[in-house]
Amino acid sequence: MSEKEPRPEIMGTGDLGLIVERASGSVLVINTSRHEVLGRIEGLGDLSHASVVYSRDARYGYVFGRDGGLTKVDLLTRTVVDRIIQSGNSIGGAISQDGRYVAVSNYEPGGVKVFDSQTLELVADVPANYTSGQSESEQSKTVGLVDAPGNLFVFSLFDAGEIWTLDMSGASLAITRFEAGKSPYDALITPDGRFYIAGLFGEDGLSMLDLWNPGQGVTEILPDYGKGEQKLPVYKMPHLEGWAIADGQAFVPAVGHHQVLVADTSDWSLTDRIPVQGQPVFVMASPDNRQIWVSFAHPDNDVVQVIDSQTLEIIRTLEPGDAVLHMEFTPRGEEVWVSARDSNRVTVYNTRTLEPVATLSAEKPSGIFFTSRAHVLGL
Amino acid sequence: MSEKEPRPEIMGTGDLGLIVERASGSVLVINTSRHEVLGRIEGLGDLSHASVVYSRDARYGYVFGRDGGLTKVDLLTRTVVDRIIQSGNSIGGAISQDGRYVAVSNYEPGGVKVFDSQTLELVADVPANYTSGQSESEQSKTVGLVDAPGNLFVFSLFDAGEIWTLDMSGASLAITRFEAGKSPYDALITPDGRFYIAGLFGEDGLSMLDLWNPGQGVTEILPDYGKGEQKLPVYKMPHLEGWAIADGQAFVPAVGHHQVLVADTSDWSLTDRIPVQGQPVFVMASPDNRQIWVSFAHPDNDVVQVIDSQTLEIIRTLEPGDAVLHMEFTPRGEEVWVSARDSNRVTVYNTRTLEPVATLSAEKPSGIFFTSRAHVLGL
Repeated sequence: MSEKEPRPEIMGTGDLGLIVERASGSVLVINTSRHEVLGRIEGLGDLSHASVVYSRDARYGYVFGRDGGLTKVDLLTRTVVDRIIQSGNSIGGAISQDGRYVAVSNYEPGGVKVFDSQTLELVADVPANYTSGQSESEQSKTVGLVDAPGNLFVFSLFDAGEIWTLDMSGASLAITRFEAGKSPYDALITPDGRFYIAGLFGEDGLSMLDLWNPGQGVTEILPDYGKGEQKLPVYKMPHLEGWAIADGQAFVPAVGHHQVLVADTSDWSLTDRIPVQGQPVFVMASPDNRQIWVSFAHPDNDVVQVIDSQTLEIIRTLEPGDAVLHMEFTPRGEEVWVSARDSNRVTVYNTRTLEPVATLSAEKPSGIFFTSRAHVLGL
Repeated sequence: MSEKEPRPEIMGTGDLGLIVERASGSVLVINTSRHEVLGRIEGLGDLSHASVVYSRDARYGYVFGRDGGLTKVDLLTRTVVDRIIQSGNSIGGAISQDGRYVAVSNYEPGGVKVFDSQTLELVADVPANYTSGQSESEQSKTVGLVDAPGNLFVFSLFDAGEIWTLDMSGASLAITRFEAGKSPYDALITPDGRFYIAGLFGEDGLSMLDLWNPGQGVTEILPDYGKGEQKLPVYKMPHLEGWAIADGQAFVPAVGHHQVLVADTSDWSLTDRIPVQGQPVFVMASPDNRQIWVSFAHPDNDVVQVIDSQTLEIIRTLEPGDAVLHMEFTPRGEEVWVSARDSNRVTVYNTRTLEPVATLSAEKPSGIFFTSRAHVLGL
C-alpha cells in the first residue's frame, strides 16, 4: 500500500456494504450492525443503473457504471483503487466463482469484456458477434450477465437471441452458444447456479437453460409470460435479478399487471396470481423464504408490500419514501434496507416486526449491495 | 483497542477461517484465497469436538470447547479477546440471527447458557429442567443447538426427550417446549431455517419440528431410520449437521450401514440407497448442490467419496490422509478443505477437477470453519 493512501480502519468486512448514489457518481460505505454511514467514495462517473459485486475477501467492491466505467473501491480505505472506462455503455457485471475475473456486459459496442480482479487488466474480449439480417457480422448488446459454478460466466445476446456460456476454468476460453428466444432483455440464475432464465422483450414466455444438462438446450417456460400478459401500459420492465425462488415456488413480477405471479419450479406451471398495489419491479424473498417483499413502478413507487410466502397474503404495506428503487436483506434476514431515491433516504426495517429501526441520509440512493454477496453464487 | 495488543493486519475478513487443532488447544487462522496459514492462536483448552461460529462482521470467532470453555478470538489480531469457562462439559453453540447473543449447549450440568456476543456477559441461564422418573427435577443434557429466524435458538433435551425454542427477540425470554422422541442426540436445521430435525438414540425415526407451523408439534420422519437400520456395529453415530439437503432431496448417512440414504424432502419418503465405502459420518452438499462429499467412520476414515447428486453415482474416491475428520466448502464452492487428523494435514481440492491444489500443515486438525458462516442461518 502506498504512503499516500489514508490509513484504513481496522475492522471486519462482513457487515459492510455500498449504497449507490446515482445522481452524484458516488457510493456510501455503510455498516449494517451499527446502521451507520462510514464514508462516501466519489468520482465513479454515471451511476444510473449501477450495480456492484465483491472480491472474495469482502474488502473490494467492483462498481459497474452506465458509462462503461468499471471502478474498484476499497471499503476499508474508502478510496477508488482503480478505475477504467472499458466501453461506451455497460449494463452490469459479475465476478467469477474463484474471484479471479470480473466480467462486464456492454451495450456499446456490445460484447463482454473480462478483467483480472486484482489489476483490472483485460483478460478476454468477447465481441459477441452474430450475423444480422443483411449477413453482416455485428456485435450484439449483451444482458443478464451472471457467474455460475465451474467458473462460468453466462449472458444473453439481445440482438442475436442467444445465450452464451463462457468457461474461464481452463487455460483458454471456451464459449458455448445456445439459441434462445427473441430479444432477451435481462436474466437471472437460481440460487444454486443451476437454471439460467432470460426474459424476452420480443415474444412471450421465458428461455431457460439447465446448466446441469446443457446438451438439452434452451427450453421455454411460462409461455404466457410477458406481453401476452399485458393489459396496462408497462411503466418499467421488471428486474429479473429480483425474482424470489422460495420453497419450490417462484414469485414473479407480472409484466404490466398489478400482480405477483406464483409458479411451481418443478414444472414451471403457473399456480397463483397475487393482487398487489402496482406494477411490481423487484420481487425478493427474505433469506428464510418466509416473506416476499415487492417494490413497484411509477406511479406506485412510494410503497413496498410484504407477502407471506405460506398464505400468499399481503401482511403489510409500507411507505419508505418517494421512488423506492431497491431493497437488500441482511444475510441472515433479520433486517432489510430500502432506498427511496426522491426522499434521499434509506430505511432499515426489522423483518419480524415490519417496523423501521433506522433511517440514513443518502443522495438519490438507488442500489444497495452488502459484502455478503461475495459468498453467494450468481451475485 | 489497547496499546498492548499487536497491530492487526489490514485485510478483508471474507476469505478467512479457523482450523481447530484438537490436541493442542489451538486454532489456525487461514486465508482461503492464498491457501495460507496466517497464524496460530493458543490457549483454548480442550478442543476435542470443538466448533466455531462467527460475529456478523466476520472478525471474531466463538470457539466452543469440550471443557465448557467459550473463547472469543480475533482473526485480525490473532489473539484471544476473551475466554470463560461457562460449564463443566459443553457440546457446541450458536449465534443469534441478529448477532447479539451466543448460546452454548451443556452436558454438565446440562441446560443452555446465553451470552452477550460483545462482552461474553451472561444474559440468560436456561437450566432445561425436567421431571425424571422419580419425580425429581433434574437438568437435562442439551444437544443440537442452532439459531433460527426470528432470533430463536432451538435445541434438544437428551434426557427429557424434548425440543425447546428460546425466543431472544423480546425484552424477556420466551421458551416453548415440544415433546420429541426418545433421547435426541444431535440435530440439524434446514438451510432456510424452517425444519429442525433431531436424531434419536433411544428409538428409530427422526423428530421434525416445522418452525413455520409450530402449533402442529413434532412429527416423525423416516420411521425406519436409526437402530432399525443397523446390521453392523456402529463405530460412530453420524453427525446430523453434515446432512446434505440438495434439490429437494436429503442425503442422509445411514447408521451402521455402508450407505448414504436419499429421501424426498416433500414427504420424507426414502427413495434410494447409495452404497459407499464405509459407515458415513459427514454427508455434505457442495454449495451448488452438484456434488455430495462423504467422510467415514473408523476403519474407513482415510477416504472421502464424491457422489454426483444427479446420477447418484460415486464419481471419485479420494485419499486425503489418515483419520479424515471434517470438510468445509468455500462459500461459492470452487474448492473444499479436508482435514486429516493423523496425517497432520489439511488438503484443498478443486471441486471441478477433484484434484488437490494445496496442502497445509496442521497439528491434529479437526473442524474447519470459514467466516462465510457469519452469513448463513443455522451455522
